[in-house]
Amino acid sequence: VRDPFSESEDAFLGHVGRLFGRPRPRRGTVGIGDDAAVLPAGPRRIVTKDLLVEGRHFDFRFLSPADLAVRALEANLSDLAGTGARPEGIIVGLAWPTGDADRRRAGGFLDGLARACRARGVPVLGGDTTSAPAEAATISITAIGTPLPGGPVLRSGGRPGDVLLVTGGLGAAGLGLEVLAGRWSVGETAGEGRAAAAVRRAWRRPRARLDAAEVLAGRARALMDLSDGLGLDLPRLARASRCGFECDAPAIPVHPAVERLCRDDREAMHRWALSGGEDFELLAAVAPRALARLRRLAGERGVALHPIGRLLGPRAGQWLRGADGRRTRWDARGWDPWERTAGEEKEKSGSRLDGSAPGRVGGGERPGNRS
Amino acid sequence: VRDPFSESEDAFLGHVGRLFGRPRPRRGTVGIGDDAAVLPAGPRRIVTKDLLVEGRHFDFRFLSPADLAVRALEANLSDLAGTGARPEGIIVGLAWPTGDADRRRAGGFLDGLARACRARGVPVLGGDTTSAPAEAATISITAIGTPLPGGPVLRSGGRPGDVLLVTGGLGAAGLGLEVLAGRWSVGETAGEGRAAAAVRRAWRRPRARLDAAEVLAGRARALMDLSDGLGLDLPRLARASRCGFECDAPAIPVHPAVERLCRDDREAMHRWALSGGEDFELLAAVAPRALARLRRLAGERGVALHPIGRLLGPRAGQWLRGADGRRTRWDARGWDPWERTAGEEKEKSGSRLDGSAPGRVGGGERPGNRS
Repeated sequence: VRDPFSESEDAFLGHVGRLFGRPRPRRGTVGIGDDAAVLPAGPRRIVTKDLLVEGRHFDFRFLSPADLAVRALEANLSDLAGTGARPEGIIVGLAWPTGDADRRRAGGFLDGLARACRARGVPVLGGDTTSAPAEAATISITAIGTPLPGGPVLRSGGRPGDVLLVTGGLGAAGLGLEVLAGRWSVGETAGEGRAAAAVRRAWRRPRARLDAAEVLAGRARALMDLSDGLGLDLPRLARASRCGFECDAPAIPVHPAVERLCRDDREAMHRWALSGGEDFELLAAVAPRALARLRRLAGERGVALHPIGRLLGPRAGQWLRGADGRRTRWDARGWDPWERTAGEEKEKSGSRLDGSAPGRVGGGERPGNRS
Repeated sequence: VRDPFSESEDAFLGHVGRLFGRPRPRRGTVGIGDDAAVLPAGPRRIVTKDLLVEGRHFDFRFLSPADLAVRALEANLSDLAGTGARPEGIIVGLAWPTGDADRRRAGGFLDGLARACRARGVPVLGGDTTSAPAEAATISITAIGTPLPGGPVLRSGGRPGDVLLVTGGLGAAGLGLEVLAGRWSVGETAGEGRAAAAVRRAWRRPRARLDAAEVLAGRARALMDLSDGLGLDLPRLARASRCGFECDAPAIPVHPAVERLCRDDREAMHRWALSGGEDFELLAAVAPRALARLRRLAGERGVALHPIGRLLGPRAGQWLRGADGRRTRWDARGWDPWERTAGEEKEKSGSRLDGSAPGRVGGGERPGNRS
């Protein structure tokens, strides 16, 4: 990989321009190299931003620079999907250390990002790059989208009685990181090995549910993406919609590889599905009368929709209903970037990804088979 | 200052929502707390992004968190001004360390940003926040704007013969940082003291030239903001316009406080004006026939315009003309975030702001009175 930082910023921008393509005046846009990107006149725009920080969100021991590019892109596309929008382009901010290994990684990241953007048909409209302290690479992607027909769909549109739907199996990304970090012991059978490979890949190469967003926009009353885990995100949707909710524990879809790896520990399996985070599936609230038609359409498009419960009235509370029919208060947790533990406060630069640091899921609720 | 990180991300977002205001549905926008910000339908949008990294772009020994908020906001507004656009709103990404001093600073930064945004009438449309390693606070602001009448104005519209204009005195911000870092000795007279205060303030509290952009949009053929210094930025505009240029050294406007501090060293004064960077004045190329009317209008609005030279044909080269009329090749340099020196390569986390690190302007061209 060519060292993209070998010369000046201008030379770097030349490299980036070749990688990502130059301005495309026919669409009325202006790309890399000017002070700003110019978007054509048109519909409402959806804008989202995500920050990824080395040591907090990624660690090059666990993923390649190209994996990181996919994660950075897809996390942002997922925010668009969760708003019922389709991507128009991204703006990339990179703060990157300047050591020799860092420079090689930057090249791999940019090549991977160019590939990932091409695969999605999403242009890079502009960006900003600068140097950063060692071991503190930071990626800030802003994604710009336009509403899908019927979009945008916000978190706040749910009504009591709406059915809650999830678009796919949960828990794989969170458990994948645990496996990558060596905090989860994988059995030696071929089946366990395949399941471990699947969860590792789920964390390294997530895929935003742009396909499901197309089905749900205009049909769901409330929509969001599951980036912090159902445990945190479902209460967010309910709160924004001023509703309570009831979620049926046995109905929560668990990723098959998580089922396989946790088959001796149902409790851990359930907790990964609720609190693992970064699955980037969608959570929707749909009016009961719209459900049949939505499910038919989803079936035609190959999009799975799993009903997991329903929204309740504003004072009805937040409940998890077990297989035995008993309700318990919702107390599942997810990934909270501000959460600190005593151990972390003592560290100068605590890394949640580091095996020595506390886990990503706090409060003693972290599942694990090595405690 | 209340600690904004004392609880969960959701509590933090509640705090941010109170600081910056909640969604304003009457404009069709959705603000803080959803997956993404929704902009109303309408004209072309201008989007720009800037990254500020602790140790590279700021150091809390030299500015307060509120100063930093002004710098972060104005640097982005300046990119909009440099494209002939007015701000519609910003999206704020913060990666912040979680130590106790860091948390107090985060509170000061957010309060300062709310104040700075109110002063400019610029709403915060959304954002993303996360934790960061110690001493690696990173601010990523995306600013969204709409073209001014006659805008957007790109770097690439200049033609041979166009007059080059600068909107104000240069060099103060760069020298201000030097004074703040204790690398420039200030004399003990009251006049030197006032000049030193002015240059410190120029670096801590820059102000984007939105006023000048209103005058120049639709009247300049090419436009950009001077963030890296005329030395680097003028060749960028000329290259984008496929022109050479000639700049008259005595015509380059020097900030009066820089003149005062450098009065015994004309050479240093000239170099600060060319290479100091971060002045956030505008550089424009204007057709000669449009000049008289533009200057009249600028005069009415109280916007100074200083002619510094002209664009030449594509093969005419890049020239600086001295007071004696002799031309020398343009070789002035500015702030290049990728520039490394031997000293910096050896450091694990070299800081350009640190007194022990090499200066921001490389290649032995950095002006200074303590070498």
